[in-house]
Amino acid sequence: MADHYVQNPAGTEPPTLPVLRWDEPPEGPVLVLLDQTRLPAEEVELVCTDVPALVRAIQTLAVRGAPLLGIAGAYGVALAAVRGFDVDEAVALLESARPTAVNLGHGVRRAAGAYRAAVDKGADPKQAARAALAAARDLHREDAEDSVRMAEQGLVLLDELLPGGGHRILTHCNTGALVSGGEGTAFAVALAAHRVGRLRRLWVDETRPLLQGARLTAYEAARSGMPYTLLTDNAAGSLFAAGEVDAVLIGADRIAADGSVANKVGSYPLAVLAKYHHVPFIVVAPTTTVDLNTPDGASIEVEQRPGHEVTEVTAPQIAAAGAGADGGLPVAPLGTQAYNPAFDVTPPDLVTAIVTEEGALSPVTGGGIAELCARSRQVTIS
Amino acid sequence: MADHYVQNPAGTEPPTLPVLRWDEPPEGPVLVLLDQTRLPAEEVELVCTDVPALVRAIQTLAVRGAPLLGIAGAYGVALAAVRGFDVDEAVALLESARPTAVNLGHGVRRAAGAYRAAVDKGADPKQAARAALAAARDLHREDAEDSVRMAEQGLVLLDELLPGGGHRILTHCNTGALVSGGEGTAFAVALAAHRVGRLRRLWVDETRPLLQGARLTAYEAARSGMPYTLLTDNAAGSLFAAGEVDAVLIGADRIAADGSVANKVGSYPLAVLAKYHHVPFIVVAPTTTVDLNTPDGASIEVEQRPGHEVTEVTAPQIAAAGAGADGGLPVAPLGTQAYNPAFDVTPPDLVTAIVTEEGALSPVTGGGIAELCARSRQVTIS
Repeated sequence: MADHYVQNPAGTEPPTLPVLRWDEPPEGPVLVLLDQTRLPAEEVELVCTDVPALVRAIQTLAVRGAPLLGIAGAYGVALAAVRGFDVDEAVALLESARPTAVNLGHGVRRAAGAYRAAVDKGADPKQAARAALAAARDLHREDAEDSVRMAEQGLVLLDELLPGGGHRILTHCNTGALVSGGEGTAFAVALAAHRVGRLRRLWVDETRPLLQGARLTAYEAARSGMPYTLLTDNAAGSLFAAGEVDAVLIGADRIAADGSVANKVGSYPLAVLAKYHHVPFIVVAPTTTVDLNTPDGASIEVEQRPGHEVTEVTAPQIAAAGAGADGGLPVAPLGTQAYNPAFDVTPPDLVTAIVTEEGALSPVTGGGIAELCARSRQVTIS
Repeated sequence: MADHYVQNPAGTEPPTLPVLRWDEPPEGPVLVLLDQTRLPAEEVELVCTDVPALVRAIQTLAVRGAPLLGIAGAYGVALAAVRGFDVDEAVALLESARPTAVNLGHGVRRAAGAYRAAVDKGADPKQAARAALAAARDLHREDAEDSVRMAEQGLVLLDELLPGGGHRILTHCNTGALVSGGEGTAFAVALAAHRVGRLRRLWVDETRPLLQGARLTAYEAARSGMPYTLLTDNAAGSLFAAGEVDAVLIGADRIAADGSVANKVGSYPLAVLAKYHHVPFIVVAPTTTVDLNTPDGASIEVEQRPGHEVTEVTAPQIAAAGAGADGGLPVAPLGTQAYNPAFDVTPPDLVTAIVTEEGALSPVTGGGIAELCARSRQVTIS
């Protein structure tokens, strides 16, 4: 049980989370994922032997989070190639698994590009598959490096914006090691602040409907010994009104060319609250999250998820307890319709800064976004 | 199962909800409550034979909602008096059962006042108890009448603010027949709009942590055949941004003398969103909800509720399914601390109007509040 982790004082670090790994047992290569739907009750691994299994894991959110989806997508292409499946079909399946997450497409195209380049140079299928796998591994390693750089850049920005220290940071959804090849995006900044003794409190939004904050961010914060407090999403307003929030730190699933940010539903209301209370609202995301082909917020396609996520409640234990077909227990009357967008879009004028591995951008403008992307290796090679 | 109610077309009305009733079976008088924690899965009645049982029902939210708490408090005093218990002790227990709900104290003091007045006039304990019961019944009836008047006043205001009709109304928590001697407060206005064919959509916030929106408002909306859609509280931002909300209608648990409104946590963020999007934010509450002894929002005591409401999920069915002592299933890691205020406070400058049985007040000012209260029979007799 993950529950049994003892909170660590700052400085002592728990072992790295086994979030995603490539393995090559005798029966053939596999992609092994930590099933995030079972956390924090159980640490259970999902073993994917083909792309349809990986697509299911992506769609059920067993694997999730913008940067990690990119890594998973790249390994998915490698898996298809190494096992001799149709690579084009794998690319199509993976690219359309979730419409809003731009990193997924990036990762898929990067591994597929390496595969095709090898084929074009006369490599045999086995060699081309190894090229795809090498590309996935490069992306994995670079993402871990990007986490380190985002955390550094974010900490510098926090110290500029909040010179007094003793930061009380509100975060939404989950943006730590569970979404990344490294320590994550927004969470990595809070963790860096914790390590240097400047985090006073991490306020963790539970993040309905799937409770990634309550299940995953609380789990990561507890593992790292951070001072954290959980709240329902709608209690954030009271914290702002009481002056208990010094900054909001969130991740992003897609950033449009004008700086509009698509992130987990509930981010936009926090941005409006932050603006109203003159609190910095900071987005932390690698430059791979920027999609220059999406001109603005209105052009971002927002995934609508099934209503049962809202009309039922789920907990990792419920599957064993007489739940319905969807694994949840009904809360609303049967037949209730739900509005369940996975993401919302925050316009650039509500974003104080975007922190990337290439530096922080503030104010957020289309020109600034273009400049950051031009500096980034990921965008220049894609 | 409440789930089996068939949606009714406008005009055909379901039977009145048996929310709260006084009964006198041979074994002695009792107060019978519909257990709201079991809805919508089951309609189960709780029979209270004494005040401690009623206090438990209030604290566990088996009975809840500002006006209904006043009625329950008044009947509680009558129950103590009729059964020969100490009336002063009953008053003290009931008044402190929930700190934020001002109506509870109003109802308790009204029945206790009638009891004491009878005693002062030389009535014997039995006669005095009957006087307390008569006061409770008067309050019950008046509250039903007030619902009708609030619905009328609210509908007039909606038609003024939104002359085009086809109202898309967002509501939070539960403010219908389950909170009232009649059809409720904010919900009653939406229901009135539905009856005249002017409700296009009722957007129902699920209202974490206890899901009164998903469980109770959806249940009442379904029963009344209203077009409704459920959403997580944090999805409301997307609705505002998409221009899908014409007005917000909520209730109130306490209104301070300056017009600050304490209501279910999550109301204040909606008020900020409404202001940002130029959408009317309307509070519907009887004048008994006004507490002239509370000068402003900062003086309102906000009840902090147990953390397990946030760290666990509950559904009516979970009790039977291996739940913990609190009746829920853990979602967050064990040992997670939660911030769980039951209410938040919206300042008057974010409230477009307060609708009472005495009329609508807009803009909301201290002077206007005082005037409304002076007109109200409840305040003049208390």
